[in-house]
Amino acid sequence: MTSTPTPAPPLPIAYETSPDGPRLLSECRSSVRPALAAAVGRLHPWVGEMAAYSLGWCEAGGAPSDTGGGKGLRQALAVLGARAAGAPRGAGVTAAVAVELVHTFSLLHDDIMDGDATRRGRPTAWKAYGTGAAVLAGDALLALAVETVAGAPGPHVPAAVRHLSAALHDLVLGQADDLLFETRPWTGPDAVGPGEYRTMAERKTGALLGCATSLGAVLAGAPATTVASLDRAGRHLGVAFQVADDVLGVWGDPAVTGKPVHSDLRRRKKTFPVLSALGTSAGASLGRLLSGAEDLDEAGARRAATAVEEAGGRAAALAEARRHLAVVDACLEEAAPAPRTAADLRALLSFLVHRDR
Amino acid sequence: MTSTPTPAPPLPIAYETSPDGPRLLSECRSSVRPALAAAVGRLHPWVGEMAAYSLGWCEAGGAPSDTGGGKGLRQALAVLGARAAGAPRGAGVTAAVAVELVHTFSLLHDDIMDGDATRRGRPTAWKAYGTGAAVLAGDALLALAVETVAGAPGPHVPAAVRHLSAALHDLVLGQADDLLFETRPWTGPDAVGPGEYRTMAERKTGALLGCATSLGAVLAGAPATTVASLDRAGRHLGVAFQVADDVLGVWGDPAVTGKPVHSDLRRRKKTFPVLSALGTSAGASLGRLLSGAEDLDEAGARRAATAVEEAGGRAAALAEARRHLAVVDACLEEAAPAPRTAADLRALLSFLVHRDR
Repeated sequence: MTSTPTPAPPLPIAYETSPDGPRLLSECRSSVRPALAAAVGRLHPWVGEMAAYSLGWCEAGGAPSDTGGGKGLRQALAVLGARAAGAPRGAGVTAAVAVELVHTFSLLHDDIMDGDATRRGRPTAWKAYGTGAAVLAGDALLALAVETVAGAPGPHVPAAVRHLSAALHDLVLGQADDLLFETRPWTGPDAVGPGEYRTMAERKTGALLGCATSLGAVLAGAPATTVASLDRAGRHLGVAFQVADDVLGVWGDPAVTGKPVHSDLRRRKKTFPVLSALGTSAGASLGRLLSGAEDLDEAGARRAATAVEEAGGRAAALAEARRHLAVVDACLEEAAPAPRTAADLRALLSFLVHRDR
Repeated sequence: MTSTPTPAPPLPIAYETSPDGPRLLSECRSSVRPALAAAVGRLHPWVGEMAAYSLGWCEAGGAPSDTGGGKGLRQALAVLGARAAGAPRGAGVTAAVAVELVHTFSLLHDDIMDGDATRRGRPTAWKAYGTGAAVLAGDALLALAVETVAGAPGPHVPAAVRHLSAALHDLVLGQADDLLFETRPWTGPDAVGPGEYRTMAERKTGALLGCATSLGAVLAGAPATTVASLDRAGRHLGVAFQVADDVLGVWGDPAVTGKPVHSDLRRRKKTFPVLSALGTSAGASLGRLLSGAEDLDEAGARRAATAVEEAGGRAAALAEARRHLAVVDACLEEAAPAPRTAADLRALLSFLVHRDR
């Protein structure tokens, strides 16, 4: 808890809130859990414990637990995306298991790269088990994801492995760019622009969401246009989420986000609202404020947040998120799923957009 | 250079030395290089530089270089193994690129896990570029290996991806066991036995050599018996190499191995000669010597080396390596390659066995 003033309300984005979101997430998690548990059960016991810890299934040491897990967004997208393409249930579950394993791999390794010590209120895996062990656990999960897709039945396995590989390729590109952004200047010819940021976010966050939404369709041999629409829907959803997370990282309620107020500004993270603000005439003083070497103190971060808001950075980010969500809608329209599935996907998205992340 | 007495001659193993070894390695490296360079060229430029550094193609910073690379054993096994199975040249090259990428990935990550600061006389990638960057580069190489196999032409791609996945699975199992061996006691019911060591070595070193030798055959749809023989040949070769490396790690010439004399004993590494010696009645005092917490000093390491030798650990290790090489021979016989290819594979192995690693 802090004594800072109440932050602005989270995300005024044009989506109706749906009460079905939590139910859908929970249903999809339940339908995927047995296959995901079976896959994790094939790992070396020590590596499997680290995987289970990262999935929120146990404490460090192996005692069963039911906290610290994610919402299961990617597995839900995989199940609903496969259903949208008319794929058999098994294809959706295989896709869900694979993307959940890739997601867990990337959290394990990204936390090492970013030096993050906590995630979802618990020590990150490298803090709990050591860096080397967490590297190994991530490797095992990545290999297991490939094994999962390669072991699926049917004639579309090569296409599905290529689809997953392409997402992994983009994931690495996005992570590399994000790490390199840290060393780039705030102003001048080498500064990071909003366009570059968008590309990074599509790769780092969007590629796996796109893969989640479309992998079941690929496994089932759905038409290329359906696959492309589902993939694009996920990719744009990823950019929207990333930009929305950026807004919460500056103006989000610390009691909800679990991070200090203005945390991304204090750490001088290159986020969309800030990069947008820097591109305006009002952003010049902001550039000077951010160009120092040390983390900003509370007063400095507050001044920076005000400057970003006054330069229109917050509004630009919300408009950006809305624009990408509109593309998501259009893509889902193109993929033309059965009305019930379309309603479920929309309910899921509306819940996710409105939740206080 | 040290002032210790000249160590025993390296490896009296029953293989004729062949002068064709270096020529074969060099020919295979040349035939694989364009495809390997093209694959690495698809990576993010920063990640690609780390990959090129790890492959010995450039210095840290990107200046071209031709030092620090490996011999290319795995790519040579892939090319010659594919040829042995009558596979088209392209299948051998694809297999070679994939296993070389996996090998480079595993060196990058293993060096982090083991805390090794130098490799082939240069700083390891995590020392040169940072831990996070080296984690990312390894991830990229692993994904690229999968992409390489998944993108190959022909109907046998799913089987080839499963074959690669199975090797990755074993690689992680072996690395996990090897890391856990460090925390296990030298004596008592929880001590590591030679049998467990053999399993670890087959997974950690043998699985990828087996995959190398057989992956081209899988891609070309060779009979299952041919694939199995080539795979087994590589796996037993891996155990033989690992055990032979253990002998060199204790008794190898520091001027040739690049490591201090008795280095594995000083670091109290659980190697085959030591584990064999501990299983004999003469090994009891050795157990007490090794059970301390600190690295051994020079005198302690010399005493331990003598104790291992007197308890028959060195002889047992050499016998073990010879036994596995005999199985390699039998497997190659079973795979029944054309006489010319059989001669090449034997020439390569004889060179590798006799080289002073």
